[in-house]
Amino acid sequence: MADAKIPYSLNSKKVAEATTNLLHERGVTMQEIAELVMVLQKKYYPNLTMEECVENVEAVLSKREVQNAVLTGIQLDMLAEEGKLLSPLQDMLANDEGLYGVDEILAFSIVNVYGSIGFTNYGYIDKLKPGVLERLNDKADGNIHTFLDDIVGAVAAAASSRIAHRKQEERELETTGTTEEDNNL
Amino acid sequence: MADAKIPYSLNSKKVAEATTNLLHERGVTMQEIAELVMVLQKKYYPNLTMEECVENVEAVLSKREVQNAVLTGIQLDMLAEEGKLLSPLQDMLANDEGLYGVDEILAFSIVNVYGSIGFTNYGYIDKLKPGVLERLNDKADGNIHTFLDDIVGAVAAAASSRIAHRKQEERELETTGTTEEDNNL
Amino acid sequence: MADAKIPYSLNSKKVAEATTNLLHERGVTMQEIAELVMVLQKKYYPNLTMEECVENVEAVLSKREVQNAVLTGIQLDMLAEEGKLLSPLQDMLANDEGLYGVDEILAFSIVNVYGSIGFTNYGYIDKLKPGVLERLNDKADGNIHTFLDDIVGAVAAAASSRIAHRKQEERELETTGTTEEDNNL
Amino acid sequence: MADAKIPYSLNSKKVAEATTNLLHERGVTMQEIAELVMVLQKKYYPNLTMEECVENVEAVLSKREVQNAVLTGIQLDMLAEEGKLLSPLQDMLANDEGLYGVDEILAFSIVNVYGSIGFTNYGYIDKLKPGVLERLNDKADGNIHTFLDDIVGAVAAAASSRIAHRKQEERELETTGTTEEDNNL
Repeated sequence: MADAKIPYSLNSKKVAEATTNLLHERGVTMQEIAELVMVLQKKYYPNLTMEECVENVEAVLSKREVQNAVLTGIQLDMLAEEGKLLSPLQDMLANDEGLYGVDEILAFSIVNVYGSIGFTNYGYIDKLKPGVLERLNDKADGNIHTFLDDIVGAVAAAASSRIAHRKQEERELETTGTTEEDNNL
Repeated sequence: MADAKIPYSLNSKKVAEATTNLLHERGVTMQEIAELVMVLQKKYYPNLTMEECVENVEAVLSKREVQNAVLTGIQLDMLAEEGKLLSPLQDMLANDEGLYGVDEILAFSIVNVYGSIGFTNYGYIDKLKPGVLERLNDKADGNIHTFLDDIVGAVAAAASSRIAHRKQEERELETTGTTEEDNNL
Repeated sequence: MADAKIPYSLNSKKVAEATTNLLHERGVTMQEIAELVMVLQKKYYPNLTMEECVENVEAVLSKREVQNAVLTGIQLDMLAEEGKLLSPLQDMLANDEGLYGVDEILAFSIVNVYGSIGFTNYGYIDKLKPGVLERLNDKADGNIHTFLDDIVGAVAAAASSRIAHRKQEERELETTGTTEEDNNL
Repeated sequence: MADAKIPYSLNSKKVAEATTNLLHERGVTMQEIAELVMVLQKKYYPNLTMEECVENVEAVLSKREVQNAVLTGIQLDMLAEEGKLLSPLQDMLANDEGLYGVDEILAFSIVNVYGSIGFTNYGYIDKLKPGVLERLNDKADGNIHTFLDDIVGAVAAAASSRIAHRKQEERELETTGTTEEDNNL
């Protein structure tokens, strides 16, 4: 095969693009994830705009660790939909088995990107399932989103943590003129 | 010093006793944690009794990993109450600073004892703060429970995970006569 | 389909059996994992026997959380071997890409089953790659074990943590006649 | 008290300064942590300079999550040295008890800042204890560094992960002219 001759070399741009494309193909828009962020954060920041929410969701999705989790989780959902996994993994994924926790594990690797302060937001939204999360959990349409619903909630929770850091930075900048370094966020 | 002559040797019983005693001293009863478990689980298991909830809370608290987190977290709360921590850690703990996440980190080491399926329950209860969690969060009384409220929520979430495993075991025992091994729970 | 009429019901025994079978199919024996445990622990417990090591490996593998991670990881390895994953996930797994960390994330959910004290053992053995780990990392044979090598190391690290808890229990039993509860281990 | 009238407001600069100062007071220099990074990475990047290692250590230490863990861990070490913790926590910290894992838990919150790919490096260095880690583990001098040795190893592991991301970025920039976004690192 011709391909075999090209030595492997990670292409970060392709990883990033595949992440956005797969979310889109599975029916999730940036806008919908941003709406989850708004649900979580409007109480604390009444002036928060949808533009800011979208921007923070995109920043979360630009992280490699997040991309790896999204690509792996959606891939497993798709293979389960096609019935291509071995039993009993196939059955556990197809039925969103409560004692299967690998979806939560991947979700946590996403939340963790902005630290432990996002854990609570993730759990809260995953339980209440507002907006897009309700649709992803509706098993009636034959689609399998065992990983995707947790992933989307985790991206929203991570974006919320990022906003909390940013807003603190803005507050300190106003008061003291000093700031956290950009890479602190 | 006489003490210096006694070589150190871990006494597991003392660690377990100190855990129960410290929770009691800080005003948290087994009954109150069990009530949180009931809030989280009654929807799924309508026949769940308070006795079962208490029993599962006690099983969680018998784990070494949990005891380590409880002892460390409450110790930090107490030192913060006495004003004995260095600034700015003292201020962050005294004010339950939102960007300080070590309390969530300890809470997660507790939830993890029964696996990732408890993450959601922890986040949910930590956000809603029913029962004892509301009291622990009331800053009006001068007490500092920055770690304790997260710890108590985490113990309740871990106990809920343990119940989910046990109930599955009971169900399979009824249907098939076979069971998960005891140390699986 | 006849199958569609049978409502889904988790069969724990099948999950456990599939875990053992898949490890065997992928060429990993209990004995080999037990040898890794011996490498990690013989320094601390000179009288440790291979029988004890095997017994502790089996106890780790009887945990649901561990089974979920093993089944999911090996499934991804197998699909990568068959070239059935979407690009660029396919390429990252086929080449054990260094910036892909989902294998480590699953490994950590295994180590965590016996708590944080196993983190160090996991990292150490994953770096040195003694015994079976060296073979799993040999890319020359065309097999893909991107997940499996981390999983096997993690099972050995978790078994080591379990031994540390058990040995402490034995020590205290000899000295004081009291013991940690069985479910503490 | 006059202080009581000043409402609490997080000062990020003070948190960052306290982190650097405490490490310095406990006898750990940036240079020494950078040397650990060099031990971990020189094999992969033969041209890596000490300046780059120092720069990456500083970037890790500028993260809030890392600062929280460093401040909390060192505080506990200091209180244990002064004998101010309650028994049995005091004894477990003073003797670096093997079954006490909160030090590893804090270390992992540090490693996690640059993702799961750092887990292996942390475990490896924590086991081998080169350079400054050997000194921190020498109990002969009466100092207690139960948390600090794990923290220092974790900062070095996180800095190594950061370097892995940066080097990939440089490589892709050379080859393709495109790059990961800066906040991806």
